[in-house]
Amino acid sequence: MKNTDVLERLAVLMKERKASAPENSYVASLYRKGRNKIAQKVGEEAVETAIAAVDGSHDEVIAESADLIFHLMVLWADMDIRPEEVYAELARREGISGIEEKNSRG
Amino acid sequence: MKNTDVLERLAVLMKERKASAPENSYVASLYRKGRNKIAQKVGEEAVETAIAAVDGSHDEVIAESADLIFHLMVLWADMDIRPEEVYAELARREGISGIEEKNSRG
Amino acid sequence: MKNTDVLERLAVLMKERKASAPENSYVASLYRKGRNKIAQKVGEEAVETAIAAVDGSHDEVIAESADLIFHLMVLWADMDIRPEEVYAELARREGISGIEEKNSRG
Amino acid sequence: MKNTDVLERLAVLMKERKASAPENSYVASLYRKGRNKIAQKVGEEAVETAIAAVDGSHDEVIAESADLIFHLMVLWADMDIRPEEVYAELARREGISGIEEKNSRG
Repeated sequence: MKNTDVLERLAVLMKERKASAPENSYVASLYRKGRNKIAQKVGEEAVETAIAAVDGSHDEVIAESADLIFHLMVLWADMDIRPEEVYAELARREGISGIEEKNSRG
Repeated sequence: MKNTDVLERLAVLMKERKASAPENSYVASLYRKGRNKIAQKVGEEAVETAIAAVDGSHDEVIAESADLIFHLMVLWADMDIRPEEVYAELARREGISGIEEKNSRG
Repeated sequence: MKNTDVLERLAVLMKERKASAPENSYVASLYRKGRNKIAQKVGEEAVETAIAAVDGSHDEVIAESADLIFHLMVLWADMDIRPEEVYAELARREGISGIEEKNSRG
Repeated sequence: MKNTDVLERLAVLMKERKASAPENSYVASLYRKGRNKIAQKVGEEAVETAIAAVDGSHDEVIAESADLIFHLMVLWADMDIRPEEVYAELARREGISGIEEKNSRG
């Protein structure tokens, strides 16, 4: 089993929660609150990640990064974005033809 | 090849760029600017992701999400955080014993 | 002359720039880029303010706070919000009946 | 009485709350939580302001802007920044020699 497998299991979970929306689910409660609230959470978790980083808190950056990725995946599911679409975009930028091209753009 | 393989290739790239720091590399230029600048980029890309989401722009959310994850991985490498540590934290929260527990915490 | 007078002069400037939109004006260029771009700037300047604060940089917090208020005032003008409306909202929350009430809400 | 007078009354309040720290005060509770938490609130309120703006919610932008300025003033007091220092910085950027110079910098 690979470490990134958790991302695939989470992607499945996000879709399930959207379909079934059990009352006691945190993810389902986010869907109910709507797109703006989910987007707000993504912004907030990133602010917390940035602050933990400037503060030099290794463990807090890990915890906040997990929160950030978690809510980002809720946002993707809410917008019917498949994680594969984001990974493909990352792959497109990868390597000389991607990252260095971005660099040359400034 | 799995879709998430790009995350592992990027993690390797982040470490290489940190070790060799080629002058024309965007990632290496971020390391040179320092922790605060990298943390700032993570916050900014999340704000752009959130705005694209509220605006309902499917493709822009994909592009900004890729930017966000990319800079998050630069931050991890800068802080000597292995992606596995974040994935393990995500796995810890996964499932009933994770997500629903978070929910019950409020 | 009071220190806060600059806020009133800036409010006038924002309206003028919106009406005349001179080509070499930074404010007018923001209006041309549109609401989302202006909102993005507000988010970004706040992230920079927060990072400067955690970093303990007194002078940088002053500089970033000025940037934040400046772009916030551009956003208000773009949305036809008069600064007085925000000051009235602040006054409404002021004092025991405002701030402490917010506190009691949690 | 001018509209911006509320800013001066709030500045006084922030200093008082810092000196006396009454237990039931929201502002005093923020000081107790510390710099990072206050910085986080500034970032979060800006994200909410940006989202409300993109959503086109006039009244919500007013409410969130008030929240943002309020927490920004708590941050200033926490860092012993006098609001006058920020207003002076805004005045410095004002007019041709300020804003347009910034514009020419790009």
